Amino acid sequence: MFDTLRDVFERHGFVPIQTPSFENLSTLTGKYGEEGDQLIFKILNNGDYLAKADEGALAAKDSKGLTASISKKALRYDLTVPFARFVVMNRNDLTFPFRRYQIQNVWRGDRPGKGRYQEFTQCDCDIIGSESTLCELDLVQIFDEALTALGVPGYRIVVNDRRILQALAGSIGVNEDQFQDWTVAVDKLDKVGVEGVIRELADRGLSEGVQEAMKGLVTLRASNAEGIQWEELARRCDGRAEAEQGLEDMRALLERAQAMGVKPESIRIDPLLARGLDYYTGAIFEVVVDSAPVGSICGGGRYADLTGIFGWEGMSGVGISFGADRIEDVLNHFDAWPELVNRGLDVMILRMSDQTLSSELALAKELREAGLGVEVYPETAKLKKQFKYADDRRARWVLLQGEEEAATQSFSLKNMSDGTQRVIPASAVRAHLLG
Amino acid sequence: MFDTLRDVFERHGFVPIQTPSFENLSTLTGKYGEEGDQLIFKILNNGDYLAKADEGALAAKDSKGLTASISKKALRYDLTVPFARFVVMNRNDLTFPFRRYQIQNVWRGDRPGKGRYQEFTQCDCDIIGSESTLCELDLVQIFDEALTALGVPGYRIVVNDRRILQALAGSIGVNEDQFQDWTVAVDKLDKVGVEGVIRELADRGLSEGVQEAMKGLVTLRASNAEGIQWEELARRCDGRAEAEQGLEDMRALLERAQAMGVKPESIRIDPLLARGLDYYTGAIFEVVVDSAPVGSICGGGRYADLTGIFGWEGMSGVGISFGADRIEDVLNHFDAWPELVNRGLDVMILRMSDQTLSSELALAKELREAGLGVEVYPETAKLKKQFKYADDRRARWVLLQGEEEAATQSFSLKNMSDGTQRVIPASAVRAHLLG
Repeated sequence: MFDTLRDVFERHGFVPIQTPSFENLSTLTGKYGEEGDQLIFKILNNGDYLAKADEGALAAKDSKGLTASISKKALRYDLTVPFARFVVMNRNDLTFPFRRYQIQNVWRGDRPGKGRYQEFTQCDCDIIGSESTLCELDLVQIFDEALTALGVPGYRIVVNDRRILQALAGSIGVNEDQFQDWTVAVDKLDKVGVEGVIRELADRGLSEGVQEAMKGLVTLRASNAEGIQWEELARRCDGRAEAEQGLEDMRALLERAQAMGVKPESIRIDPLLARGLDYYTGAIFEVVVDSAPVGSICGGGRYADLTGIFGWEGMSGVGISFGADRIEDVLNHFDAWPELVNRGLDVMILRMSDQTLSSELALAKELREAGLGVEVYPETAKLKKQFKYADDRRARWVLLQGEEEAATQSFSLKNMSDGTQRVIPASAVRAHLLG
Repeated sequence: MFDTLRDVFERHGFVPIQTPSFENLSTLTGKYGEEGDQLIFKILNNGDYLAKADEGALAAKDSKGLTASISKKALRYDLTVPFARFVVMNRNDLTFPFRRYQIQNVWRGDRPGKGRYQEFTQCDCDIIGSESTLCELDLVQIFDEALTALGVPGYRIVVNDRRILQALAGSIGVNEDQFQDWTVAVDKLDKVGVEGVIRELADRGLSEGVQEAMKGLVTLRASNAEGIQWEELARRCDGRAEAEQGLEDMRALLERAQAMGVKPESIRIDPLLARGLDYYTGAIFEVVVDSAPVGSICGGGRYADLTGIFGWEGMSGVGISFGADRIEDVLNHFDAWPELVNRGLDVMILRMSDQTLSSELALAKELREAGLGVEVYPETAKLKKQFKYADDRRARWVLLQGEEEAATQSFSLKNMSDGTQRVIPASAVRAHLLG
C-alpha cells in the first residue's frame, strides 16, 4: 500500500521527508485541544527523573502539574505539527511552494476500538506557500488516483469549504461565538440524525430558531445527493464575499476534477461537512466508503496559517492525510486486497541428500537472481514433511533432485496449483519458470 | 535502501512482520543487561498516574523504584525480543522453520553521537526452528547480495563461532566464570590494541598467564588476514567436541559461501570476534567497512534458545540485523548514494494564462500516467520566478504553452541539463520525453 501511495505522491512532485518520533512535549501541548493533550504519550525522562521533579506537584500528588517536570519528550500525535515545525526550522533551505509527503506512525492514547488504534500510520501530503486552488485540485486527483490504484471500492471524496459552512451557519442565525458549538453538533449528523443534532444544539444553548432552521440545511444537504443546489447555496451565501469566493472555488474544483477524469460518483459536495479541526480556513476534505465498518479513511483541508504557532505568520497551506490502517480495514472488510499482497513463495527447493546440496543451492541462486522468491528447505527431512511445509508457505512450485534426477542433472518440478509434475534439465528450470 | 533490502529478503523467502512500538515494560526489563535497562524509553501512564504510584518509592524519591508503578509501557529497544514474543504468542499459527524479516525503528536513550542515534531503523532477518547451518549460509548470502546491491564499498563479513571463542579462551586458561569478563575485554581489541586488552584483563583480575597468552591469540588472529590458520585453530580446539563442530561448521560455511559467489575478500574469519551479546551460542556475524567513520554496520548470530524467556524452550534460531542509519552514514561518507536516490523532479509545467490551464493540466495528467513525476506551478507568476523554482526543484524538463504555442496546440520544451529548447506538438510530448 505504501509503495502505491508513494508512487502517486511522487508523480505529483511531492518529496518525502521524515521527522523523529519524539517532539518536545512543550511543542505538542496545546495544539490538539484539552482532550488531545490527555491523549499524547509522554516519555519519562531517563535517569533520576525525580531529582528535578516539581516539589509542589509531587507533594500534592498532582499528576497533571508534575508531568512537565518529569517528561521533556513526547511521541508525535499527528504529522501536521511536526511538519509545521520542520518548515519553520528549515525555512531558509526550502523552496516554496513546498510539497512534501510523509509516511510515518503517530501515537494517541485512545481506548483501542473498531478503526481506532494507539499507534497508526498516517500518510500526509501538504503544499505550503501557495494560495492557488490548483493545489486543492492536485490533492483531489491524488485521492482519486491512489484509492483507485489501491482498489478501495465505492470511495467518495466529500468536499466543503469552511467559508461556506460559516455562511450557512450565519444564514440560520448562528453567531460567531456559537459557531464552534454548532460545528461539533453538526459533525455528528450521520451518527445521530437530524433529531440528535437538534437535541445537541439545544443542550449547547443554541436558540429554538436555529434548531428549527437546521432542518432546512439538512434538507439542502440531502438534496445535494441528486446534484448540487448551486442556486440555493448561492442564495444563502449572498452578500458574504468570502463565502461567494468559497462557492466559486468549490465549483471550479469540481469542474476541473471531473475534467481530469474523477468520476462524478466519486466526488460530492457536502455543505455541512465540518470536521472538528479548528485550523481549517478554506477547503475541507473527507473520504468515506459506503457501508464500511470505519469512519472516514482520509481527511484534510486548507489552513491559512499553520506555521504561525511557531512564529512564522501567514503561510497558507493545504494538506490531506490517508489513514493507512483504516484503509487496510476497509480492504480486509471487502476482502479486496490485490492479489499481489497475499502472494506466498515462488519456489521451494527440497533438500534430498548431501550429494545434491550444491546443485540445489546453485539453482536457488540462479532463480533468485532472476527475481524469484526461493527457499531451500534447511534439512533433509522426510519428503512428506517438506511438502507440507511448501504447502503451508503457499509455494507455487516445488523442485527436487532425487538420485535419478541427479544422474541426469535435472530436477522434478511440481506445479502446486494444478498438481502436475515433470522432470526437466537443471539448465532449463529458470526459462521454464519465467516463461 | 529499504526497497533493496526487502527485495533481497523476499527472494530468500522471508516474510515481513511488524510489531507495535510499545511493549510492556516488564517484557523488556532485564533482557539487555543493567545498562540496557537504563536506556529503555518508558512511557508515562496516561491520566492520573500518581494515584497508583508506589508510595514508598515516592516518599524516598527513588526514581528507579517508582518507575514500574507509573509506567506500564516502553518503546522497543531492538527487534529480537519483540520477535521472540511474537513467535511464542503465535506459535500455533506459524509454520516452522519460520523466516521473518522486520524493518522498524527502535529507541535507545544513548547520548547521541557519531553513528549513535536515539531512534534508528533496524532491518532484521531471523530463521527460527532449524539448527541447519544452511540457515547461516542464507544469511551470509543476504549480507553479500544486499550490500552489493546498495553499493556499500569495501564491506567485510566477519564470522566466528561462540564455541570456538570459548575453546580459545579455555586454551589460554580462562575459566568459565571469567569468560564474560574476558569477552568484554577482547571486544575492545580494535579500539585499544593488544596492550589495552591486557591492561583490561589485569583490571578484571585475570591471571598473568592469561594476559601473556593473549598475545598468542592476537597473533593467530592477525595471521588469519593472510589465510585462515585451520591447523592452529584445530590444535587449540582439540578435544573439545563442541568447538570442533563449530570449526567444521565455519569451514563449511566459508566454502559454500564462496561457491555461491561471495568474494574471498568480502568474508573473513575472526576467531576473536565476540560481540557483547550473551545469547549467541553458535555462529557470530559482524559486518565492517574499512576506513568508515562508524563501527559495525550489521551484526547477528545463532541463539540456541531465544524464546525460552517467554516460556518456550529449545527453539534454535539464527538472525542478522542491518543498521540502516549506519549504512546511510557509510554511503554518505563515501558519497556513494546511487544516482536514483538523489533524483529531482522529472517535469515542471509552467502556468501561463487562464486560457492554457486546461491543456497544461491535461498534459500533466498524461505524463503522470506514463509514470513521470510532474508538477504544475500553482500560479501564473513571472516566468523568471517559475524557472527559478524549476531549477531549485532540479527539474529535468520544463514545459510551457505561450500564446503562440497555444495557437498551434504545442508546447515549448526546455531540457534543463543542456539548456536546449524546442517547440513540439502537445500530442508528441509524451513520446518525446519517454523516447
